[in-house]
Amino acid sequence: MGEVLKIRTTKHTSIVNITHQVAEVVKKSGIKEGICVVYTPHTTACVFVNEGADPDVVRDFVHTLEKLIPWNDPNYTHMEGNSAAHIRSAIIGNSRVIPVIDGQLALGTWESIFLADFDGPRERRVLVFVIGEKQ
Amino acid sequence: MGEVLKIRTTKHTSIVNITHQVAEVVKKSGIKEGICVVYTPHTTACVFVNEGADPDVVRDFVHTLEKLIPWNDPNYTHMEGNSAAHIRSAIIGNSRVIPVIDGQLALGTWESIFLADFDGPRERRVLVFVIGEKQ
Amino acid sequence: MGEVLKIRTTKHTSIVNITHQVAEVVKKSGIKEGICVVYTPHTTACVFVNEGADPDVVRDFVHTLEKLIPWNDPNYTHMEGNSAAHIRSAIIGNSRVIPVIDGQLALGTWESIFLADFDGPRERRVLVFVIGEKQ
Repeated sequence: MGEVLKIRTTKHTSIVNITHQVAEVVKKSGIKEGICVVYTPHTTACVFVNEGADPDVVRDFVHTLEKLIPWNDPNYTHMEGNSAAHIRSAIIGNSRVIPVIDGQLALGTWESIFLADFDGPRERRVLVFVIGEKQ
Repeated sequence: MGEVLKIRTTKHTSIVNITHQVAEVVKKSGIKEGICVVYTPHTTACVFVNEGADPDVVRDFVHTLEKLIPWNDPNYTHMEGNSAAHIRSAIIGNSRVIPVIDGQLALGTWESIFLADFDGPRERRVLVFVIGEKQ
Repeated sequence: MGEVLKIRTTKHTSIVNITHQVAEVVKKSGIKEGICVVYTPHTTACVFVNEGADPDVVRDFVHTLEKLIPWNDPNYTHMEGNSAAHIRSAIIGNSRVIPVIDGQLALGTWESIFLADFDGPRERRVLVFVIGEKQ
Protein backbone atom coordinates (compact mmCIF):
# COMPACT_ATOMS: atom_id res chain seq x y z
CA MET A 1 0.00 0.00 0.00
CA GLY A 2 1.52 3.29 -1.06
CA GLU A 3 0.88 6.98 -1.02
CA VAL A 4 2.70 9.87 -2.68
CA LEU A 5 3.57 12.87 -0.55
CA LYS A 6 4.02 16.17 -2.36
CA ILE A 7 6.60 18.36 -0.69
CA ARG A 8 7.09 21.95 -1.79
CA THR A 9 10.68 22.95 -1.03
CA THR A 10 11.56 26.61 -0.57
CA LYS A 11 15.31 26.96 -1.00
CA HIS A 12 18.06 25.73 -3.30
CA THR A 13 19.09 23.25 -0.61
CA SER A 14 16.12 22.25 1.54
CA ILE A 15 16.07 19.59 4.23
CA VAL A 16 12.46 18.82 5.16
CA ASN A 17 11.40 16.72 8.15
CA ILE A 18 8.67 14.40 6.79
CA THR A 19 8.40 12.02 9.75
CA HIS A 20 4.86 13.01 10.64
CA GLN A 21 3.55 12.52 7.10
CA VAL A 22 5.26 9.14 6.75
CA ALA A 23 3.81 8.02 10.11
CA GLU A 24 0.33 9.01 8.92
CA VAL A 25 0.62 6.77 5.85
CA VAL A 26 1.79 3.85 8.02
CA LYS A 27 -1.20 4.37 10.31
CA LYS A 28 -3.66 4.51 7.41
CA SER A 29 -2.17 1.35 5.88
CA GLY A 30 -3.39 -0.71 8.85
CA ILE A 31 -0.19 -2.78 8.65
CA LYS A 32 0.94 -4.05 12.05
CA GLU A 33 4.20 -5.76 11.20
CA GLY A 34 6.20 -5.06 8.07
CA ILE A 35 8.47 -2.55 6.45
CA CYS A 36 8.06 0.98 5.20
CA VAL A 37 10.04 2.17 2.18
CA VAL A 38 10.42 5.95 1.90
CA TYR A 39 11.44 6.57 -1.72
CA THR A 40 11.99 9.77 -3.66
CA PRO A 41 11.86 9.28 -7.46
CA HIS A 42 14.16 12.24 -8.19
CA THR A 43 17.84 12.22 -9.12
CA THR A 44 18.81 15.46 -7.35
CA ALA A 45 17.15 14.71 -4.01
CA CYS A 46 17.59 12.05 -1.34
CA VAL A 47 16.00 10.53 1.76
CA PHE A 48 17.88 10.01 5.01
CA VAL A 49 17.24 9.39 8.70
CA ASN A 50 18.93 11.43 11.43
CA GLU A 51 18.36 13.75 14.37
CA GLY A 52 15.37 16.03 14.09
CA ALA A 53 15.56 17.77 17.49
CA ASP A 54 18.41 20.25 16.92
CA PRO A 55 18.34 22.01 13.53
CA ASP A 56 22.11 22.56 13.84
CA VAL A 57 22.65 18.89 12.99
CA VAL A 58 21.06 19.40 9.59
CA ARG A 59 23.00 22.66 9.15
CA ASP A 60 26.31 20.86 9.77
CA PHE A 61 25.25 18.10 7.36
CA VAL A 62 24.60 20.67 4.63
CA HIS A 63 27.90 22.47 5.38
CA THR A 64 29.86 19.22 5.06
CA LEU A 65 28.17 18.21 1.80
CA GLU A 66 28.98 21.61 0.30
CA LYS A 67 32.60 21.19 1.43
CA LEU A 68 32.94 17.64 0.06
CA ILE A 69 30.76 17.88 -3.05
CA PRO A 70 30.75 21.61 -3.86
CA TRP A 71 28.14 23.11 -6.15
CA ASN A 72 30.89 24.50 -8.38
CA ASP A 73 33.75 22.35 -9.63
CA PRO A 74 35.47 23.23 -12.93
CA ASN A 75 35.74 19.51 -13.72
CA TYR A 76 31.99 18.86 -13.80
CA THR A 77 30.85 18.13 -17.36
CA HIS A 78 27.03 17.77 -17.01
CA MET A 79 25.52 20.67 -18.96
CA GLU A 80 22.67 21.39 -16.55
CA GLY A 81 25.17 22.54 -13.93
CA ASN A 82 23.62 20.53 -11.09
CA SER A 83 26.10 17.66 -10.90
CA ALA A 84 26.66 18.20 -7.18
CA ALA A 85 22.98 17.46 -6.54
CA HIS A 86 23.11 14.27 -8.60
CA ILE A 87 26.28 13.06 -6.87
CA ARG A 88 24.95 13.74 -3.35
CA SER A 89 21.73 11.90 -4.22
CA ALA A 90 23.58 8.90 -5.69
CA ILE A 91 25.88 8.55 -2.68
CA ILE A 92 23.37 9.13 0.13
CA GLY A 93 20.60 7.23 -1.64
CA ASN A 94 17.08 7.96 -2.78
CA SER A 95 15.38 5.81 -0.14
CA ARG A 96 15.42 4.52 3.40
CA VAL A 97 13.73 1.42 4.83
CA ILE A 98 12.18 1.42 8.31
CA PRO A 99 10.64 -1.58 10.08
CA VAL A 100 7.00 -1.28 11.17
CA ILE A 101 6.28 -2.90 14.55
CA ASP A 102 2.95 -2.81 16.41
CA GLY A 103 1.63 -0.58 13.63
CA GLN A 104 4.32 2.05 14.15
CA LEU A 105 7.60 3.09 12.55
CA ALA A 106 10.44 1.60 14.61
CA LEU A 107 12.29 4.93 14.78
CA GLY A 108 14.70 5.63 17.62
CA THR A 109 14.06 8.43 20.12
CA TRP A 110 16.07 11.01 18.19
CA GLU A 111 15.40 9.78 14.68
CA SER A 112 13.47 11.75 12.08
CA ILE A 113 13.00 11.05 8.37
CA PHE A 114 14.15 13.80 6.00
CA LEU A 115 13.75 14.64 2.37
CA ALA A 116 16.80 16.55 1.11
CA ASP A 117 16.32 18.63 -2.02
CA PHE A 118 19.72 19.64 -3.43
CA ASP A 119 18.38 21.51 -6.45
CA GLY A 120 15.28 23.36 -5.35
CA PRO A 121 13.03 25.06 -4.87
CA ARG A 122 10.62 22.60 -6.48
CA GLU A 123 7.68 20.38 -5.76
CA ARG A 124 9.14 17.01 -4.86
CA ARG A 125 7.41 13.67 -4.54
CA VAL A 126 8.08 11.04 -1.87
CA LEU A 127 6.54 7.60 -2.22
CA VAL A 128 5.73 6.00 1.13
CA PHE A 129 5.20 2.30 0.58
CA VAL A 130 4.26 -0.18 3.32
CA ILE A 131 4.17 -3.96 3.05
CA GLY A 132 3.48 -6.59 5.68
CA GLU A 133 0.80 -8.22 7.79
CA LYS A 134 -2.42 -6.55 8.95
CA GLN A 135 -3.29 -9.29 11.49
CA MET B 1 11.54 -14.64 -6.07
CA GLY B 2 15.07 -13.88 -7.14
CA GLU B 3 17.37 -14.01 -10.10
CA VAL B 4 21.09 -13.41 -10.42
CA LEU B 5 22.29 -11.11 -13.20
CA LYS B 6 25.83 -11.62 -14.42
CA ILE B 7 27.42 -8.37 -15.53
CA ARG B 8 30.78 -8.36 -17.29
CA THR B 9 32.48 -5.03 -16.58
CA THR B 10 35.11 -3.73 -18.98
CA LYS B 11 37.15 -1.10 -17.15
CA HIS B 12 38.77 -0.57 -13.78
CA THR B 13 35.87 1.70 -12.84
CA SER B 14 32.70 0.70 -14.67
CA ILE B 15 29.24 2.12 -14.14
CA VAL B 16 26.68 -0.11 -15.84
CA ASN B 17 23.02 0.77 -16.36
CA ILE B 18 21.09 -2.40 -15.39
CA THR B 19 17.57 -0.94 -15.31
CA HIS B 20 16.30 -2.99 -18.21
CA GLN B 21 17.51 -6.30 -16.77
CA VAL B 22 16.06 -5.51 -13.34
CA ALA B 23 12.71 -4.59 -14.93
CA GLU B 24 12.69 -7.94 -16.77
CA VAL B 25 13.04 -9.86 -13.50
CA VAL B 26 10.22 -7.84 -11.93
CA LYS B 27 8.00 -8.63 -14.92
CA LYS B 28 8.81 -12.35 -14.80
CA SER B 29 8.11 -12.47 -11.04
CA GLY B 30 4.43 -11.69 -11.66
CA ILE B 31 4.40 -9.57 -8.51
CA LYS B 32 1.98 -6.66 -8.75
CA GLU B 33 2.61 -4.85 -5.48
CA GLY B 34 5.76 -5.25 -3.42
CA ILE B 35 9.39 -4.31 -3.28
CA CYS B 36 12.42 -5.11 -5.36
CA VAL B 37 15.85 -5.40 -3.72
CA VAL B 38 18.80 -4.94 -6.08
CA TYR B 39 21.77 -6.39 -4.22
CA THR B 40 25.39 -6.93 -5.26
CA PRO B 41 27.23 -9.48 -3.08
CA HIS B 42 30.67 -7.91 -3.69
CA THR B 43 32.71 -5.68 -1.37
CA THR B 44 34.30 -3.51 -4.07
CA ALA B 45 31.13 -2.73 -6.03
CA CYS B 46 27.88 -0.94 -5.26
CA VAL B 47 24.35 -0.34 -6.50
CA PHE B 48 22.83 3.13 -6.81
CA VAL B 49 19.96 4.94 -8.53
CA ASN B 50 20.46 8.16 -10.50
CA GLU B 51 20.10 9.81 -13.88
CA GLY B 52 20.65 7.55 -16.87
CA ALA B 53 19.92 10.01 -19.69
CA ASP B 54 23.14 12.04 -19.77
CA PRO B 55 26.34 10.00 -19.36
CA ASP B 56 28.08 13.13 -18.04
CA VAL B 57 26.24 12.68 -14.74
CA VAL B 58 27.96 9.35 -14.20
CA ARG B 59 31.29 10.85 -15.33
CA ASP B 60 31.01 13.61 -12.72
CA PHE B 61 30.07 11.02 -10.08
CA VAL B 62 33.23 9.02 -10.88
CA HIS B 63 35.37 12.19 -10.89
CA THR B 64 34.09 13.18 -7.45
CA LEU B 65 34.62 9.73 -5.95
CA GLU B 66 38.21 9.72 -7.20
CA LYS B 67 38.73 13.17 -5.67
CA LEU B 68 37.19 12.22 -2.30
CA ILE B 69 38.31 8.60 -2.01
CA PRO B 70 41.38 8.41 -4.26
CA TRP B 71 42.73 5.10 -5.49
CA ASN B 72 46.13 5.93 -3.98
CA ASP B 73 46.54 7.12 -0.43
CA PRO B 74 49.79 6.44 1.46
CA ASN B 75 47.76 5.80 4.61
CA TYR B 76 45.84 2.80 3.27
CA THR B 77 46.97 -0.40 4.99
CA HIS B 78 44.97 -3.13 3.16
CA MET B 79 47.52 -5.27 1.31
CA GLU B 80 45.43 -5.85 -1.81
CA GLY B 81 45.70 -2.17 -2.69
CA ASN B 82 42.00 -1.74 -3.44
CA SER B 83 40.89 0.02 -0.25
CA ALA B 84 39.31 2.85 -2.23
CA ALA B 85 36.92 0.38 -3.84
CA HIS B 86 35.95 -1.12 -0.47
CA ILE B 87 35.38 2.29 1.10
CA ARG B 88 33.25 3.57 -1.79
CA SER B 89 31.16 0.39 -1.65
CA ALA B 90 30.69 0.59 2.13
CA ILE B 91 29.60 4.24 2.03
CA ILE B 92 27.33 4.16 -1.04
CA GLY B 93 25.91 0.75 -0.18
CA ASN B 94 25.68 -2.63 -1.88
CA SER B 95 21.92 -2.45 -2.50
CA ARG B 96 18.94 -0.29 -3.31
CA VAL B 97 15.25 -0.95 -2.68
CA ILE B 98 12.57 0.08 -5.18
CA PRO B 99 8.81 -0.24 -4.69
CA VAL B 100 6.89 -2.31 -7.26
CA ILE B 101 3.48 -0.86 -8.15
CA ASP B 102 1.10 -2.22 -10.80
CA GLY B 103 3.75 -4.81 -11.64
CA GLN B 104 6.38 -2.17 -12.45
CA LEU B 105 9.38 -0.58 -10.75
CA ALA B 106 8.28 2.77 -9.30
CA LEU B 107 11.26 4.59 -10.83
CA GLY B 108 11.05 8.32 -11.55
CA THR B 109 11.24 9.67 -15.09
CA TRP B 110 15.01 10.23 -14.99
CA GLU B 111 15.95 7.35 -12.70
CA SER B 112 18.08 4.40 -13.76
CA ILE B 113 19.58 1.62 -11.65
CA PHE B 114 23.37 1.26 -11.85
CA LEU B 115 25.94 -1.29 -10.85
CA ALA B 116 29.26 0.42 -10.06
CA ASP B 117 32.35 -1.74 -10.22
CA PHE B 118 35.27 0.06 -8.56
CA ASP B 119 37.82 -2.72 -9.04
CA GLY B 120 37.22 -4.24 -12.46
CA PRO B 121 37.20 -5.49 -15.02
CA ARG B 122 35.45 -8.58 -13.65
CA GLU B 123 32.26 -10.59 -13.91
CA ARG B 124 29.97 -9.19 -11.22
CA ARG B 125 26.75 -10.62 -9.87
CA VAL B 126 23.63 -8.67 -8.99
CA LEU B 127 20.81 -10.37 -7.14
CA VAL B 128 17.39 -9.02 -8.08
CA PHE B 129 14.91 -10.10 -5.44
CA VAL B 130 11.19 -9.31 -5.50
CA ILE B 131 8.66 -9.90 -2.72
CA GLY B 132 4.99 -8.99 -2.50
CA GLU B 133 1.52 -9.85 -3.74
CA LYS B 134 0.70 -11.41 -7.08
CA GLN B 135 -3.06 -10.73 -6.81
CA MET C 1 9.59 -11.02 13.08
CA GLY C 2 12.18 -8.90 14.82
CA GLU C 3 14.79 -9.05 17.52
CA VAL C 4 16.91 -6.35 19.11
CA LEU C 5 20.63 -6.98 19.44
CA LYS C 6 22.43 -5.09 22.17
CA ILE C 7 26.00 -4.27 21.19
CA ARG C 8 28.42 -2.81 23.74
CA THR C 9 31.00 -0.75 21.87
CA THR C 10 34.40 -0.14 23.47
CA LYS C 11 35.98 2.83 21.68
CA HIS C 12 35.02 6.26 20.43
CA THR C 13 34.88 4.82 16.92
CA SER C 14 33.96 1.14 16.96
CA ILE C 15 33.23 -1.05 13.96
CA VAL C 16 31.65 -4.30 15.13
CA ASN C 17 31.10 -7.35 12.94
CA ILE C 18 27.53 -8.50 13.75
CA THR C 19 27.07 -11.01 10.92
CA HIS C 20 26.83 -14.03 13.20
CA GLN C 21 24.17 -12.47 15.43
CA VAL C 22 22.10 -11.34 12.45
CA ALA C 23 22.31 -14.84 10.92
CA GLU C 24 21.07 -16.32 14.21
CA VAL C 25 17.94 -14.15 14.12
CA VAL C 26 17.26 -15.14 10.51
CA LYS C 27 17.58 -18.82 11.45
CA LYS C 28 15.24 -18.45 14.44
CA SER C 29 12.67 -16.62 12.31
CA GLY C 30 12.07 -19.75 10.24
CA ILE C 31 11.68 -17.59 7.14
CA LYS C 32 12.87 -19.32 3.98
CA GLU C 33 12.46 -16.60 1.39
CA GLY C 34 12.24 -12.93 2.20
CA ILE C 35 14.28 -9.95 3.27
CA CYS C 36 16.20 -9.02 6.38
CA VAL C 37 16.41 -5.39 7.47
CA VAL C 38 19.32 -4.57 9.79
CA TYR C 39 18.42 -1.24 11.37
CA THR C 40 20.12 0.83 14.06
CA PRO C 41 17.80 3.38 15.71
CA HIS C 42 20.66 5.76 16.60
CA THR C 43 21.67 8.99 14.88
CA THR C 44 25.43 8.71 15.47
CA ALA C 45 25.85 5.11 14.31
CA CYS C 46 25.32 3.27 11.05
CA VAL C 47 25.04 -0.17 9.46
CA PHE C 48 27.02 -1.22 6.41
CA VAL C 49 28.13 -4.35 4.55
CA ASN C 50 31.74 -4.93 3.50
CA GLU C 51 34.74 -7.20 3.84
CA GLY C 52 35.14 -8.89 7.20
CA ALA C 53 38.25 -11.01 6.50
CA ASP C 54 41.01 -8.39 6.67
CA PRO C 55 40.66 -5.86 9.52
CA ASP C 56 42.77 -3.41 7.48
CA VAL C 57 39.75 -2.76 5.26
CA VAL C 58 37.81 -1.41 8.22
CA ARG C 59 40.88 0.55 9.36
CA ASP C 60 41.14 2.26 5.97
CA PHE C 61 37.40 2.98 6.03
CA VAL C 62 37.76 4.71 9.42
CA HIS C 63 40.85 6.63 8.23
CA THR C 64 38.99 7.93 5.19
CA LEU C 65 35.91 8.98 7.16
CA GLU C 66 38.09 10.92 9.58
CA LYS C 67 39.81 12.61 6.62
CA LEU C 68 36.54 13.48 4.84
CA ILE C 69 34.28 14.21 7.82
CA PRO C 70 36.72 15.11 10.60
CA TRP C 71 35.68 15.06 14.23
CA ASN C 72 36.75 18.70 14.60
CA ASP C 73 35.66 21.38 12.18
CA PRO C 74 35.39 25.01 13.34
CA ASN C 75 32.25 25.41 11.21
CA TYR C 76 30.19 22.81 13.05
CA THR C 77 27.39 24.47 15.04
CA HIS C 78 25.75 21.54 16.89
CA MET C 79 26.40 22.10 20.60
CA GLU C 80 26.98 18.48 21.53
CA GLY C 81 30.17 18.46 19.47
CA ASN C 82 29.41 15.18 17.71
CA SER C 83 28.30 16.50 14.33
CA ALA C 84 30.81 14.30 12.50
CA ALA C 85 29.08 11.21 13.89
CA HIS C 86 25.65 12.48 12.80
CA ILE C 87 26.87 13.34 9.31
CA ARG C 88 28.61 9.98 8.78
CA SER C 89 25.45 8.20 9.94
CA ALA C 90 23.17 10.26 7.68
CA ILE C 91 25.33 9.70 4.60
CA ILE C 92 26.16 5.99 5.05
CA GLY C 93 22.69 5.14 6.35
CA ASN C 94 21.25 3.58 9.46
CA SER C 95 20.22 0.32 7.80
CA ARG C 96 21.00 -2.28 5.16
CA VAL C 97 18.65 -4.77 3.50
CA ILE C 98 19.77 -8.32 2.68
CA PRO C 99 17.73 -10.94 0.80
CA VAL C 100 17.02 -14.23 2.59
CA ILE C 101 17.17 -17.27 0.31
CA ASP C 102 16.80 -20.90 1.41
CA GLY C 103 16.58 -19.65 4.99
CA GLN C 104 19.96 -17.90 4.82
CA LEU C 105 21.29 -14.38 4.34
CA ALA C 106 22.32 -13.99 0.69
CA LEU C 107 25.72 -12.52 1.62
CA GLY C 108 28.65 -12.80 -0.76
CA THR C 109 31.78 -14.77 0.13
CA TRP C 110 33.61 -11.76 1.56
CA GLU C 111 30.65 -9.86 2.94
CA SER C 112 30.08 -9.16 6.61
CA ILE C 113 27.51 -6.92 8.28
CA PHE C 114 28.90 -4.18 10.51
CA LEU C 115 27.57 -1.80 13.10
CA ALA C 116 29.65 1.39 13.14
CA ASP C 117 29.51 3.47 16.30
CA PHE C 118 30.96 6.93 15.64
CA ASP C 119 30.34 8.32 19.12
CA GLY C 120 31.04 5.55 21.61
CA PRO C 121 31.68 3.80 23.75
CA ARG C 122 28.01 3.05 24.40
CA GLU C 123 25.46 0.27 24.38
CA ARG C 124 23.93 0.35 20.92
CA ARG C 125 20.82 -1.39 19.66
CA VAL C 126 20.40 -3.05 16.28
CA LEU C 127 16.96 -4.20 15.17
CA VAL C 128 17.08 -7.30 12.98
CA PHE C 129 13.77 -7.62 11.21
CA VAL C 130 12.84 -10.45 8.82
CA ILE C 131 9.77 -10.66 6.60
CA GLY C 132 8.78 -13.26 4.04
CA GLU C 133 7.49 -16.78 3.53
CA LYS C 134 8.02 -19.70 5.89
CA GLN C 135 6.79 -22.26 3.34
